[in-house]
Amino acid sequence: MNLDLPRFVDIFEEGPREGFQIESPDIPTADKVRFIDALSETGVKHIQCVSFVNPKRVPGMADAEAVASAIARTEGVSYTGIWLNQQGLERAARSTLDMGGELQVYASQTFGLKNSNRDDQQMLEEQRRYLNFYKEHGIPLDSLIVMTAFGCHYEGEIAISRVCEQIASVLTLASEMGVQVPRLRLADTVGLAVPTAVLRLVGAVRDRWPDLRIGLHLHDTRGSGLANCLAGLSLGVDSFDSACGGLGGCPFAGHRSAAGNICTEDFVFMCHEMGIETGIDLHKMVECARLAERIVGHPLPSKLARTGV
Amino acid sequence: MNLDLPRFVDIFEEGPREGFQIESPDIPTADKVRFIDALSETGVKHIQCVSFVNPKRVPGMADAEAVASAIARTEGVSYTGIWLNQQGLERAARSTLDMGGELQVYASQTFGLKNSNRDDQQMLEEQRRYLNFYKEHGIPLDSLIVMTAFGCHYEGEIAISRVCEQIASVLTLASEMGVQVPRLRLADTVGLAVPTAVLRLVGAVRDRWPDLRIGLHLHDTRGSGLANCLAGLSLGVDSFDSACGGLGGCPFAGHRSAAGNICTEDFVFMCHEMGIETGIDLHKMVECARLAERIVGHPLPSKLARTGV
Repeated sequence: MNLDLPRFVDIFEEGPREGFQIESPDIPTADKVRFIDALSETGVKHIQCVSFVNPKRVPGMADAEAVASAIARTEGVSYTGIWLNQQGLERAARSTLDMGGELQVYASQTFGLKNSNRDDQQMLEEQRRYLNFYKEHGIPLDSLIVMTAFGCHYEGEIAISRVCEQIASVLTLASEMGVQVPRLRLADTVGLAVPTAVLRLVGAVRDRWPDLRIGLHLHDTRGSGLANCLAGLSLGVDSFDSACGGLGGCPFAGHRSAAGNICTEDFVFMCHEMGIETGIDLHKMVECARLAERIVGHPLPSKLARTGV
Repeated sequence: MNLDLPRFVDIFEEGPREGFQIESPDIPTADKVRFIDALSETGVKHIQCVSFVNPKRVPGMADAEAVASAIARTEGVSYTGIWLNQQGLERAARSTLDMGGELQVYASQTFGLKNSNRDDQQMLEEQRRYLNFYKEHGIPLDSLIVMTAFGCHYEGEIAISRVCEQIASVLTLASEMGVQVPRLRLADTVGLAVPTAVLRLVGAVRDRWPDLRIGLHLHDTRGSGLANCLAGLSLGVDSFDSACGGLGGCPFAGHRSAAGNICTEDFVFMCHEMGIETGIDLHKMVECARLAERIVGHPLPSKLARTGV
């Protein structure tokens, strides 16, 4: 097994956004802010704080603006939000958060239709509008995220050729509009990836776009989250989204400790023990996970929150 | 990343033993038997049912003989127990379980002293007595297990040269007594392994003993359990111990969903999706995990028990 491990991995902490959007809407704004402020002290450089979405559909995010404006910002840390449409984007731009432009594409058109009611062509048109907005407002482009890159429950596995076509369509659009995409994030939206699939897709994307930085957004839905990370790391992938505590689990009956993002502190532990730096203080990140558990009021999937470092 | 994946992986189910020895001693014998009988229907070929240990120290195993004699045996499945001393071995031999001779060695002498009150030399003498007993009673040798092969909390990481010396001492003893060790199990007893450590140790052992079959006994203490499995699989390791539901977690305050063995059904899912056969019916194994949760009365670390297949 040839390992081309990166020396340093950039971790994009998504716990506040992934977590609070599915947890009880009764969690006080002050607790959300307290959690984000604690994350700021861990050394992590990117914190995704909120999503600007319809509060009727996602009541836990109704206080997005209030959270954004109450954060005690630490220098060198970017605080961002996400959006799923033009309205959300405009709310984000008006907020006090940092703006990193994101482009979105679905590998599975069926999933895209069900999730956002847009087909491939409509999604592409939306990306054009996003790009125009970013240009007009001087927002730097951060990444293109490929949702359902490892398949979905409607279409099963998606052919790599199809995934690459979808990526190419957005890269071409951006290029035509004079913008370069600095990072491509392959998202295992519904948690179907296994290591061999990660190796195949990352390999294929890198073969076609050797200079494009690749990131992985993985869920630990079926337990292979960190094994999938290892597959990415072995190919030198150096950008990962993760969630402190493993926040973001699905609200299944009785026990929510499953199906969230890969857990930041467990991933950081594995990286550090393999000699990969993250810039994160592991002890502090574990304390954040414990704080998150107290805030949400139930156990989270984190292993290190139980065992300690 | 070169993957030398095996085509078929032998899974040694240890859930009943790993789980019930740390769970409440009030679990009825009939429930333990029901769980083992359900496992018999999954296609798994090896079930470790009980440990023959001091009932005062491990009250959950006080009914070991009763469990053993009540199992509804399925043809082609081996039902075994473990022991930690001569007395336990004799109980096992008198029981109705199948006997597979095991030899034991500690990579960490400090851990061995604390855990079993024997130093290297005393451990080796005990292995000699075991080997004599196996010979006298016609018990075939199954494996040599190396405990704390990936380090311990007292000594930290253990030098690979030391691990290999310890293995060599038992292999030499067995060879002098005319017995061949068919399988070597490297155990991450306290859950400190990471994938690079697995690659290094498995690689070193294989270099020295190319014909010795290697198995891995891994815990998911810090979340990298399946990543460690992937490292082993990538080198062709085809024998893994695991526990249905991830049974075996440490009894930490409030929530036990951590630190158990790697979870059988999550591992089987990963194997199957990577094209590796296990002979196990994944749906039935997930049902067993749910049965285990009902029996122990609290959630287990299994992801698939939450999400389904």
